[in-house]
Amino acid sequence: MKKLINHVDSVLEESLDGFAAAHADIVSLGPQREFVRRLHTKPGKVALISGGGSGHEPLHAGFVGHGMLDAACPGQVFTSPTPNQMLAAAESVDTGAGVLFIVKNYSGDMMNFQMAAEMLDRDNATVIVNDDVAVENSTYTTGRRGVAGTLIVEKIVGAAAERGDGLAALKVLGDAVNKATASMGVALSSCTVPAAGKPTFQIGADEMEMGVGIHGEPGRRRVKIATADEIAAELAGAVLKDLSLRPGQEAILLVNGFGGTPALELYLMVHAALRVLGGAGVKVVRHLTGSYVTSLEMAGCSITVTAADAAQLALWDAPVNTAALRWGI
Amino acid sequence: MKKLINHVDSVLEESLDGFAAAHADIVSLGPQREFVRRLHTKPGKVALISGGGSGHEPLHAGFVGHGMLDAACPGQVFTSPTPNQMLAAAESVDTGAGVLFIVKNYSGDMMNFQMAAEMLDRDNATVIVNDDVAVENSTYTTGRRGVAGTLIVEKIVGAAAERGDGLAALKVLGDAVNKATASMGVALSSCTVPAAGKPTFQIGADEMEMGVGIHGEPGRRRVKIATADEIAAELAGAVLKDLSLRPGQEAILLVNGFGGTPALELYLMVHAALRVLGGAGVKVVRHLTGSYVTSLEMAGCSITVTAADAAQLALWDAPVNTAALRWGI
Repeated sequence: MKKLINHVDSVLEESLDGFAAAHADIVSLGPQREFVRRLHTKPGKVALISGGGSGHEPLHAGFVGHGMLDAACPGQVFTSPTPNQMLAAAESVDTGAGVLFIVKNYSGDMMNFQMAAEMLDRDNATVIVNDDVAVENSTYTTGRRGVAGTLIVEKIVGAAAERGDGLAALKVLGDAVNKATASMGVALSSCTVPAAGKPTFQIGADEMEMGVGIHGEPGRRRVKIATADEIAAELAGAVLKDLSLRPGQEAILLVNGFGGTPALELYLMVHAALRVLGGAGVKVVRHLTGSYVTSLEMAGCSITVTAADAAQLALWDAPVNTAALRWGI
Repeated sequence: MKKLINHVDSVLEESLDGFAAAHADIVSLGPQREFVRRLHTKPGKVALISGGGSGHEPLHAGFVGHGMLDAACPGQVFTSPTPNQMLAAAESVDTGAGVLFIVKNYSGDMMNFQMAAEMLDRDNATVIVNDDVAVENSTYTTGRRGVAGTLIVEKIVGAAAERGDGLAALKVLGDAVNKATASMGVALSSCTVPAAGKPTFQIGADEMEMGVGIHGEPGRRRVKIATADEIAAELAGAVLKDLSLRPGQEAILLVNGFGGTPALELYLMVHAALRVLGGAGVKVVRHLTGSYVTSLEMAGCSITVTAADAAQLALWDAPVNTAALRWGI
């Protein structure tokens, strides 16, 4: 295993310290590094809290700040954070308007966020993200996995929270955006969890994992490597099948790298995906391209489409000031 | 070779088409994709033009837009663009205030930009970036290489151009920022140029290339993998030795990923670098962390330090609206 680390036991804490130092104008670290929180909370605003295993950076800590999350709870690499982390985060950032948890559908996250929600003595609601159309049930989930679409839910709901929407309205909006969002990914290589010290899975020199999850967990099938156009046709095709969009529907396209794929290839995939989506009459009106929801250094990408109306697009466009997304400010 | 591509011959053009589509609010493509230009030029503003081999994305096209470059000329992967591309870009974006070329010190780029500068029938000047302290002369250079510090030069000079500084002043500023900037990198893995189809270099499972260039070219020496702290000590140590900063000097720290290194590790390197810099009395007052000047999917990172005064920090902070850097707008 070759990684820029000191000891496998201190990877997360040293990385969080570096993150907090690099973005000290936006975030601060909670006690014992239990959570990353927005530097200044906004009185009367519903607090948005997400979290999950580390190794998916910039998700979630990179999305803490004005217009997006109020706090993120980082677990160890590919391991759920604890209910105590979520409770500590909620106590720290709730200003009295309640807490909305945004949770990717993984069994560990679901169990721990649910426990936190039950223990929390404050108004709260939970939006579950399950945008991955690759498989129903999988290694770590009952039902569909929550993947890159999570950041779109966090951005749109975050903007609505920032303008002052209440908890009930945010829950409805989050569920609606999740329902209008679909993703599917492909892996060309594995990734290595520091504490494991060896690749999560083996993959042949001419193979790819179609429908892979963001922990390198299996997808639909192991196949021979294909062209970008063929891959885009399958990924975007599965997404379109799930969403059943009407021709002319406006959409956000996220081409997300898993960590080890160059921008050169991601933009080539944008080009390929646009042909598929355009062929189906979908009108891509907003783009996000980059490695935003990663699986450590895994090579590959996912395609996410969110069907959005004018109000949701305005929320997407609204100012955001986080480590990983920053515009309008 | 496993890559998200269709044919090795069309990688660059398909990627540029995807880039232009994804950022159509900021850039447009020149005829025959000879350059990426800012969508709207600003009359009376000196035109900033950079370029170089592709495979280093987001450098340079990702830095085209308000407050940074007016145009970028992409060569094939790791291959210099031609003088004709630079001339076409200059004709397209010069509004009469002249052209400043910002050129990384590689022999091919130097020769072609110099030829373009001589052929160009407009006021022009050139800033050469040679921030890499690893080696004097190398595979593709006479003198030091230009690496990640290039983006800092482009950002600071870009902001000065945006506020209306003239060509001569921008040339002086660019040279000063280059002189105050030093970088050094390390590679843990190689990268594969699509047209070559095999890794640029071989490296053992327990080795790293200390002082690597951004094409995977050799650095100072091949050594056994070390800890993040040891790597940071050598990289930041070499940078500090070159810059000979006084205690209390304010600086920008760029921890740059080469393409295949997760954000988790880059932020850990920020933490490690800060200890080294802090120990030398350097005051890091601005941070940039991410994969900005890459070598395709190479694993590794570089550390760049720019000593900056208050005026230069204000230029760093000034609004920028490009694909890869966006703030204040």
